[in-house]
Amino acid sequence: MRAEPPRLGALIQALCCMPGIGQKSAQRISYHLLQRDRNGAKSLAAALADAMDNIGSCERCRNFSETPVCELCLSEKRDGSLLCIVESPADVFAMEEAGYNGKYFVLMGHLSPLDGIGPQELGLDKLAAYLAGSPGDEAGAGVKEVILATNSTMEGEATAHFISNIVQKHDMRVTRIAHGVPLGGELEYIDSNTLSHALAGRRDITG
Amino acid sequence: MRAEPPRLGALIQALCCMPGIGQKSAQRISYHLLQRDRNGAKSLAAALADAMDNIGSCERCRNFSETPVCELCLSEKRDGSLLCIVESPADVFAMEEAGYNGKYFVLMGHLSPLDGIGPQELGLDKLAAYLAGSPGDEAGAGVKEVILATNSTMEGEATAHFISNIVQKHDMRVTRIAHGVPLGGELEYIDSNTLSHALAGRRDITG
Repeated sequence: MRAEPPRLGALIQALCCMPGIGQKSAQRISYHLLQRDRNGAKSLAAALADAMDNIGSCERCRNFSETPVCELCLSEKRDGSLLCIVESPADVFAMEEAGYNGKYFVLMGHLSPLDGIGPQELGLDKLAAYLAGSPGDEAGAGVKEVILATNSTMEGEATAHFISNIVQKHDMRVTRIAHGVPLGGELEYIDSNTLSHALAGRRDITG
Repeated sequence: MRAEPPRLGALIQALCCMPGIGQKSAQRISYHLLQRDRNGAKSLAAALADAMDNIGSCERCRNFSETPVCELCLSEKRDGSLLCIVESPADVFAMEEAGYNGKYFVLMGHLSPLDGIGPQELGLDKLAAYLAGSPGDEAGAGVKEVILATNSTMEGEATAHFISNIVQKHDMRVTRIAHGVPLGGELEYIDSNTLSHALAGRRDITG
């Protein structure tokens, strides 16, 4: 016999839409919320609905934003001559943690023709227009260097390569973030591809 | 600089109310929902609010229920002479999976004087009244055996002991679920307490 009320079953199913949450975790979470934190759950419901209704995309950088153009794009304190291209909003977060202080362009994915994700889906036409200094929005005209910070995966590399071709049409520097041994990494445990990258990308020590 | 809109920060904080979800998972979940599953997130918000507003406790067994008395308590198909006492709704689920077909009483916790959880909080007065066959609700009068299925922890054992004293005042059988080696368990890997329990609880093989 089904021992749970229908609304509880519905809640458990709905919780499964979150990545990393399966049937068992969803059950545990729903029991916990019902038994111990109903107020927290109500706040969560409100925050979810509020976020989904009010968070859109920035017209300029495509990152999540509550306003047509995001705070970060509008900020005068940031270096407008640097444009960093990343795959996702989480990467923006990571770059901020690393101390980057320029502007961003967020692809919201990577090229993946089999999944129907092409240049159009990544907003590359918007990027090209921005770099050309589109009329009415001159911000892009100040960009001097485009930093490609897509992931170091097959798709990320292909996307970086594709974008570098677009950028090279403009008179700008295009760079790719360095790949190599992570700080604290021990050679013994690093995979051979990373190590061969690190070797090929070796630099002179200037004393 | 804070790279996320305020509502996204609020959502991440709200997600942390779920057990097992920390800051990093909350961030990953919120990005996923915003980028790929806004409809799922909206359904989740609705299911959460709906469940919190409409799921209460069964007046008889204290399990989660949308109606004053739950389906399981009202069911005529279940054996009313058996009453199984468990700590949480998740345990009801586990007992159902195991094929139990009697009635339940859900403590919603275990005795824990340090946390202020005494007999009152576990509804033991309600249990006593039920077993005595309270006027207007004769269901409890049919109970012939009370099965104590609290967890096999220190607190669960103490709770079981306490309840057995209450039940023994009535003319009923009181039993405790068996403890021992789990099916498929190998002696070599079983902890010594479980094994000594299994040894003490050995039974004759009747051919």
